[in-house]
Amino acid sequence: MTLRRVGELGLVRRIRELAGGATAGVLTGIGDDAAVLSLTPGASLLATTDLLIEDVHFRRSTAGPRDLGWKAMAVNLSDIAAMGGTPRYALVALAVPAGTALPDVEAFVEGMREAAAPHGVAIVGGDTSASPERWFVNVTLLGEHEGAAKLRSAARPGDAVAVTGSLGRSAAGLAVLEAGAERARAAGAGAAVEEMARAHLRPCARVAEGRWLGREPAVHAMIDVSDGLATDLGHICRESGVGARVHLDRLPVAPGVLELARALGRDPVDWAAAGGEDYELLLTCAPEAADALARGLRKATGTALTVVGQVVAAAPEVTWLGPDGAPVAVRAGYEHFGG
Amino acid sequence: MTLRRVGELGLVRRIRELAGGATAGVLTGIGDDAAVLSLTPGASLLATTDLLIEDVHFRRSTAGPRDLGWKAMAVNLSDIAAMGGTPRYALVALAVPAGTALPDVEAFVEGMREAAAPHGVAIVGGDTSASPERWFVNVTLLGEHEGAAKLRSAARPGDAVAVTGSLGRSAAGLAVLEAGAERARAAGAGAAVEEMARAHLRPCARVAEGRWLGREPAVHAMIDVSDGLATDLGHICRESGVGARVHLDRLPVAPGVLELARALGRDPVDWAAAGGEDYELLLTCAPEAADALARGLRKATGTALTVVGQVVAAAPEVTWLGPDGAPVAVRAGYEHFGG
Repeated sequence: MTLRRVGELGLVRRIRELAGGATAGVLTGIGDDAAVLSLTPGASLLATTDLLIEDVHFRRSTAGPRDLGWKAMAVNLSDIAAMGGTPRYALVALAVPAGTALPDVEAFVEGMREAAAPHGVAIVGGDTSASPERWFVNVTLLGEHEGAAKLRSAARPGDAVAVTGSLGRSAAGLAVLEAGAERARAAGAGAAVEEMARAHLRPCARVAEGRWLGREPAVHAMIDVSDGLATDLGHICRESGVGARVHLDRLPVAPGVLELARALGRDPVDWAAAGGEDYELLLTCAPEAADALARGLRKATGTALTVVGQVVAAAPEVTWLGPDGAPVAVRAGYEHFGG
Repeated sequence: MTLRRVGELGLVRRIRELAGGATAGVLTGIGDDAAVLSLTPGASLLATTDLLIEDVHFRRSTAGPRDLGWKAMAVNLSDIAAMGGTPRYALVALAVPAGTALPDVEAFVEGMREAAAPHGVAIVGGDTSASPERWFVNVTLLGEHEGAAKLRSAARPGDAVAVTGSLGRSAAGLAVLEAGAERARAAGAGAAVEEMARAHLRPCARVAEGRWLGREPAVHAMIDVSDGLATDLGHICRESGVGARVHLDRLPVAPGVLELARALGRDPVDWAAAGGEDYELLLTCAPEAADALARGLRKATGTALTVVGQVVAAAPEVTWLGPDGAPVAVRAGYEHFGG
């Protein structure tokens, strides 16, 4: 059963069924000209939007529609988390070829819902269209925040630079998906294959971590690691008018990433510093508070926080330091319009 | 200067400049993980999103980037108007080929801003990406509403069916743009050519009208005419569980539309009933209040309100009546996934 047979009306009806029933705060959901929603009195509104385009952000040969739905939601959850906010409502714009099978779109919506539901996020509206060739997905996520949100522009010289969880898992997973699953298994890194592929296809946004960190006054600037540590720390530096020094040997890299890098002959530090799509939170904080923040975050969420460098009063760029303390080069993250 | 040379960072910087400066309610605009916004205390949040895809919703041979930016904003403004709400904040996701000229994207953003500014709407965020071939635009518009929004599901048997302004101008404009400008001029309909082409390329959302009508308790259901009167009145009927009877000879059709239809050998009633993209407001109201609503709306906004039919307790479908009162057939509006 393709969308050509179901029609737009049938498709919207099916999405409405799959998106789930009544949710607190949703006065009017899918099916009218606009959703009507309520926010917690006194809270600020947070709004973010992210595109996922076939053959630009993902390949259908490696990412199924359920993965895609999950990821489209997760990358937006991560943006709200990076503000220290609470995600509430999602809208999805989906353009797919008219010959797309309805079960593929159903799996996509279910993937969205699976990523959204643990955070109490409701799918409240959207738009559907035929696309000439490729899948185009745009999710807009609305959230809320009480008090002051954590901005990219709030880093101060002397701050510690810290990151949640570990880095490089998504890049390792992409390497596995694109070429190396068999090779990695042959080299004895089979156990890490599934874990890293999943980290790439089904990233988990640090929502609880963001909310916890968002309430801590010692946390100054915050951003999520979507384009890679190099690029995202660069955003903090530029917006704050500061520089940063990062010790490459302090980057938290999971054992499975090291294992896969060895098996595939790749550099795990490059994956961790420039790979992107880890959706960890990168923050700067008062240096004397770093230890207490790490202990508190671990206790509240089970997630590690690792100090990887310092903010300095310098040109707004990142300096990378090798094990001997000397500067080393790290490639830039992904450039969308790169030649 | 193409986007390949400017890069994503340069592009976002330029969009941020063009999107304009500080606006009331925008605590953090373009440039962070999410926008931070405030709403009027006590108001509900409205959220809507609309896709515009090259070669599906528009052709670059007839619509310039400035037209496209305008339209992407206008279609969303119209959705907020149809709820009786006030538009506030816009996010834009834009995917274009890497070889796109920067001035084309600048013109697109200026078109958005031109459509948004008269309504006090600020562009507060978005996402940019390379697209393999075509322009993909998704605008999400956030608005607010005090009191109860006007829904599609609130039509009652006995209601009058009424529409603002006039119908068929956009379809006439599309016919002119696609094939007929020279032919229409040759047939003496030159004066209408520019007007209708503009109605198609730069539709004006009925924002003030929606807000005025949204405060009137006698207005029951409301929707905007985006897919065509036939389709959009069908939405009201289905969501309200009612039928509707529309008198084709009561449809408000501008003289220029009649003139162009004559010149091009087309049916103006078909344009008005099924053409779509007029972005007028279609409503049902207490029948005894229709005259007062029309007078009040005209006085407040200068815009006409014309009763074109009645809501009936019947199967949720639209019956079209010819000049003699007998049912006639009208084609359905645009179907996205049509074969």
